Amino acid sequence: MIQIRTDLAIENREFYQEQNDGEVPGIKVEEEIEENYTITRVRIIDEIGSNHLEKPKGVYITIEVPKLKSADQDLKDEISQVVAKEIKGLGLSNEDTKTLIVGLGNWNVTPDALGPKVVDRVLVTRQYFVAYNKKRDETVANVAKISPGVMGLTGIETGEIVKGIVEKTKPDLVIAVDSLASRRMERVSTTIQISNTGIIPGSGIGNKRTGLNEEYLGVPVVAIGVPTVVDAATMINDTMDLIIGSMRKVARVGTEFYSTLERVSREDRYQLIKEVLEPYMTNVVVTPKEIDLIIDDLSIIIGNGLNMALHHGIELKDVNRYIR
Amino acid sequence: MIQIRTDLAIENREFYQEQNDGEVPGIKVEEEIEENYTITRVRIIDEIGSNHLEKPKGVYITIEVPKLKSADQDLKDEISQVVAKEIKGLGLSNEDTKTLIVGLGNWNVTPDALGPKVVDRVLVTRQYFVAYNKKRDETVANVAKISPGVMGLTGIETGEIVKGIVEKTKPDLVIAVDSLASRRMERVSTTIQISNTGIIPGSGIGNKRTGLNEEYLGVPVVAIGVPTVVDAATMINDTMDLIIGSMRKVARVGTEFYSTLERVSREDRYQLIKEVLEPYMTNVVVTPKEIDLIIDDLSIIIGNGLNMALHHGIELKDVNRYIR
Amino acid sequence: MIQIRTDLAIENREFYQEQNDGEVPGIKVEEEIEENYTITRVRIIDEIGSNHLEKPKGVYITIEVPKLKSADQDLKDEISQVVAKEIKGLGLSNEDTKTLIVGLGNWNVTPDALGPKVVDRVLVTRQYFVAYNKKRDETVANVAKISPGVMGLTGIETGEIVKGIVEKTKPDLVIAVDSLASRRMERVSTTIQISNTGIIPGSGIGNKRTGLNEEYLGVPVVAIGVPTVVDAATMINDTMDLIIGSMRKVARVGTEFYSTLERVSREDRYQLIKEVLEPYMTNVVVTPKEIDLIIDDLSIIIGNGLNMALHHGIELKDVNRYIR
Amino acid sequence: MIQIRTDLAIENREFYQEQNDGEVPGIKVEEEIEENYTITRVRIIDEIGSNHLEKPKGVYITIEVPKLKSADQDLKDEISQVVAKEIKGLGLSNEDTKTLIVGLGNWNVTPDALGPKVVDRVLVTRQYFVAYNKKRDETVANVAKISPGVMGLTGIETGEIVKGIVEKTKPDLVIAVDSLASRRMERVSTTIQISNTGIIPGSGIGNKRTGLNEEYLGVPVVAIGVPTVVDAATMINDTMDLIIGSMRKVARVGTEFYSTLERVSREDRYQLIKEVLEPYMTNVVVTPKEIDLIIDDLSIIIGNGLNMALHHGIELKDVNRYIR
Repeated sequence: MIQIRTDLAIENREFYQEQNDGEVPGIKVEEEIEENYTITRVRIIDEIGSNHLEKPKGVYITIEVPKLKSADQDLKDEISQVVAKEIKGLGLSNEDTKTLIVGLGNWNVTPDALGPKVVDRVLVTRQYFVAYNKKRDETVANVAKISPGVMGLTGIETGEIVKGIVEKTKPDLVIAVDSLASRRMERVSTTIQISNTGIIPGSGIGNKRTGLNEEYLGVPVVAIGVPTVVDAATMINDTMDLIIGSMRKVARVGTEFYSTLERVSREDRYQLIKEVLEPYMTNVVVTPKEIDLIIDDLSIIIGNGLNMALHHGIELKDVNRYIR
Repeated sequence: MIQIRTDLAIENREFYQEQNDGEVPGIKVEEEIEENYTITRVRIIDEIGSNHLEKPKGVYITIEVPKLKSADQDLKDEISQVVAKEIKGLGLSNEDTKTLIVGLGNWNVTPDALGPKVVDRVLVTRQYFVAYNKKRDETVANVAKISPGVMGLTGIETGEIVKGIVEKTKPDLVIAVDSLASRRMERVSTTIQISNTGIIPGSGIGNKRTGLNEEYLGVPVVAIGVPTVVDAATMINDTMDLIIGSMRKVARVGTEFYSTLERVSREDRYQLIKEVLEPYMTNVVVTPKEIDLIIDDLSIIIGNGLNMALHHGIELKDVNRYIR
Repeated sequence: MIQIRTDLAIENREFYQEQNDGEVPGIKVEEEIEENYTITRVRIIDEIGSNHLEKPKGVYITIEVPKLKSADQDLKDEISQVVAKEIKGLGLSNEDTKTLIVGLGNWNVTPDALGPKVVDRVLVTRQYFVAYNKKRDETVANVAKISPGVMGLTGIETGEIVKGIVEKTKPDLVIAVDSLASRRMERVSTTIQISNTGIIPGSGIGNKRTGLNEEYLGVPVVAIGVPTVVDAATMINDTMDLIIGSMRKVARVGTEFYSTLERVSREDRYQLIKEVLEPYMTNVVVTPKEIDLIIDDLSIIIGNGLNMALHHGIELKDVNRYIR
Repeated sequence: MIQIRTDLAIENREFYQEQNDGEVPGIKVEEEIEENYTITRVRIIDEIGSNHLEKPKGVYITIEVPKLKSADQDLKDEISQVVAKEIKGLGLSNEDTKTLIVGLGNWNVTPDALGPKVVDRVLVTRQYFVAYNKKRDETVANVAKISPGVMGLTGIETGEIVKGIVEKTKPDLVIAVDSLASRRMERVSTTIQISNTGIIPGSGIGNKRTGLNEEYLGVPVVAIGVPTVVDAATMINDTMDLIIGSMRKVARVGTEFYSTLERVSREDRYQLIKEVLEPYMTNVVVTPKEIDLIIDDLSIIIGNGLNMALHHGIELKDVNRYIR
């Protein structure tokens, strides 16, 4: 079977649609198109949808912001507010919710550092709730956070660390932030995915094998991710699709060339690419040259979004007052 | 009562000896003087010693290396080996021991970042033992590590995080590395304390309230610390002792001046200093200007020491091959 | 002679006033007391003043903000505006001025990193003026910047690097930002000094021997500095002054004790301190434990101040839009 | 004309050979194949060679080390020694040479930070030669260094900064280290290019427009570079060449398909790729996900190589003693 490497539900859907005609069965899709961004909410409603998209049942919200790479402060602020609204819209938190934010990924690998960097931006308050034995506060909710690292850094599965902390601190909600892989370079740094399903094993660009989800942790898990890398073979294959598509338009139907092109696309061109690339570019995962800047920007956008989503007294105008 | 702020057992002993004559009751002391360093092993053997030194029973090994600040590579290597030898000498680990290294402190505050920086230098191997279901290896032992941050960063007590991880990963031994406070500026960065008692509440320069010790964690806890800060009021008071001591030598016994000096030192001069300093320098904790460099050097010295102490196949000549 | 280590004109003046009665001859002083801060403008008007304060003729503006250490965003913004106003008040720049900002100090030594960190915050525009061959712009002025490092990092005198760049780029004004030494711990991070005299050799906490001043560079040089370190011996001596002052109040005039205290203070007590400290604390320069945070805050305050002072189209509300 | 984006002389040569048969006229090539690496020395001897390779006359030494990405310490040490030997082999330095090392690139952009990171590793000594008015030393040569930043950081052309410093400090030799672009992902981080021609305008991945060469600076300029990025369009085009090459082998000569493939490759397939990619991936430059690690490793390898090449008393065994 032809595979693509992606963590985005909408790309799995896109891929299905390229191979088949019509919508993926077992899902419901809702699209909201605004001037600066598009929100696509893919709801996987049954096992059929789950199998087709290779993801657990739940909702996958994708915010696409084509101009995010060169965004000015107004656009960044707007997207922070969209992120806050969509997180709140999941209906998993209110003023009394105790939340644990988990920043997944390796802080020493720039494209994998989104989680830890977002976590740096979130206002934590749990210590005051504990110290003053409080249940509720007028402006802030009970929030704790951790960046557990990756197995190569700690020797411990990320899931075990998070589960150990969940057992000790008993949050009502876990929000995990992670770097993702996309099939398309143009989605890197312009797309934010929010889901209520947690993060399943094998996802992400690192090696986090244990699922961070409600089944394992015992509390709902929201996952927020942004693609920061692309698998080179997938990118090249997709580009060849575009090229061949464009060549087909000029080739006459019925000619040998046309049928060869047709045939090739059916005969696992991806396999050919893999074979050809194998000797010199095995499993190359690439990221844009400007990745440091991209990660910085995204961590502020999502961090601000989380602060507004979780702390009822924090609005856009306050967002820089509470964090460093 | 006059208090001093220190985390070093030998300074508590020193202070006792300044106030009283003779050795602290309830302890045994052993000194080993080498060309480049002195090792003092203070063994608190009963409750009396424990009360006098305000520390739990156990052994406190202090390695003092006056020239460590301007050490060349040979001296650093020598001290790494001394650290390794003293850790092994505690008799708490062998080739089969599963160890969890904990780097205490705040990585954003340079003088408090020693623990996380040492942890960066330790070779972790637990993931391979788990992946290959191994019990023992020819060259390395089973080591995991974590830098849990401080409460201000995570909203969670450090002890809770460590305990959660200990319960999940079940190590045989925990080694906690931390920055300490000393009463004397000259001990900053030249003194390493190793104990088998863990770290008691209130120690360290951060806010770690839950004790990381065998009682709480259920496994033996070795604590390794280096003073990186001095409380300004303590430092000034100690300096005034020196000054007054030197003035006494020139004042004639029996004169009013002499007796005033005597009286003053008995009448809580420290309290006076505190009162005088209060308005403009409350609780100032200082660190040398060169602290970044000091932390870097110490993290390599101790990190290398830990690698040699724990991994039976790592010797001095290999120590830079295994870590970055 | 008794010496103190300070880079602040107001501390030299303070020291003069402690040793003598009345105002320093050859200077004019103007004080402006606001709710949150005090501005002292010391004008050294002739050689006599220059000798007494050991500084070249010119104006030394000191902004003291006692609450700056724990400032909220409003106070930080207020001080940024004060900094901008005082820089503009020097009358050395307008919309057509070409400015070179120089961040002095060593970026690897936290208390010495203020200059490079401020420089990171300044909006540079010279490249557009050059590219479009422009003389003037509606919103921004022509600004370039450099952090030349220190001699230990480059092997080159800082002054030579700056002079080489000044000769190539021909700015109208140089603004040098540096970390300073104070005699009092409470001034660290709460005091900003702005002068129109450049930085004379031997100032600062690093080793910058060539003066960055109009004489050497050929263009006016504004110096902006904040104390980040204190010489330990100076701090202890000053504290002893306070203690002895407080003891004097209770000693009866005419007693031997009183006269001893009097005598001691005249007989170079500082020398005694130095002698006593020598064996174990030569030239210790200390900085508060929280220096990382302090430097971060100050670099934003001063960086924002510079952007508002130099770029006529940048106001407080825009200040975070132009820089990262 | 079809263009490729590369800074490597051997890739320009490779490209010529793909388009034409036989060797590039006007150059001399020498290859040395060792177990772990291959050295190719391309000498451009006249204008014809210079035009064909689009590079100035001089020697371009390429060290290719396929296993460098996963190198152990022994291989890294071996390559450091090869780098040292090749730099010395250029015959531009001896024990009396005053060298200025220039680290080109932007330290905030990981794939562009190689120059500044290498510079961090070089032992500088000029300050001692100046302070003691020395001409020669038994173990070290006179070395200074600077990382001038990029125009976007400083507002000043890199060349102007370097020239200003060269005029003030009068070195005999400049060695510039920079990140390069390659056409092939497999060359990223496995290939080191050393030339005696300086760096010509437009090279590198940043924006350094003024040439750093003997003509501009007045002293010989050695350039050391490593590819850290690949232009996505170039990479895709090269991959399609491989794919089509592999498809040609199975297509019968004389069929329409074969001739179409032939035709396409002649009819500027690259242009087609560019057009197809344009809407969604203009000028995407990619780097491997592991770039942080790659830059760290390379900066040690090249930094050690430079220290051994320049300082006659530094051998491999000492190389970690002199630098941090």
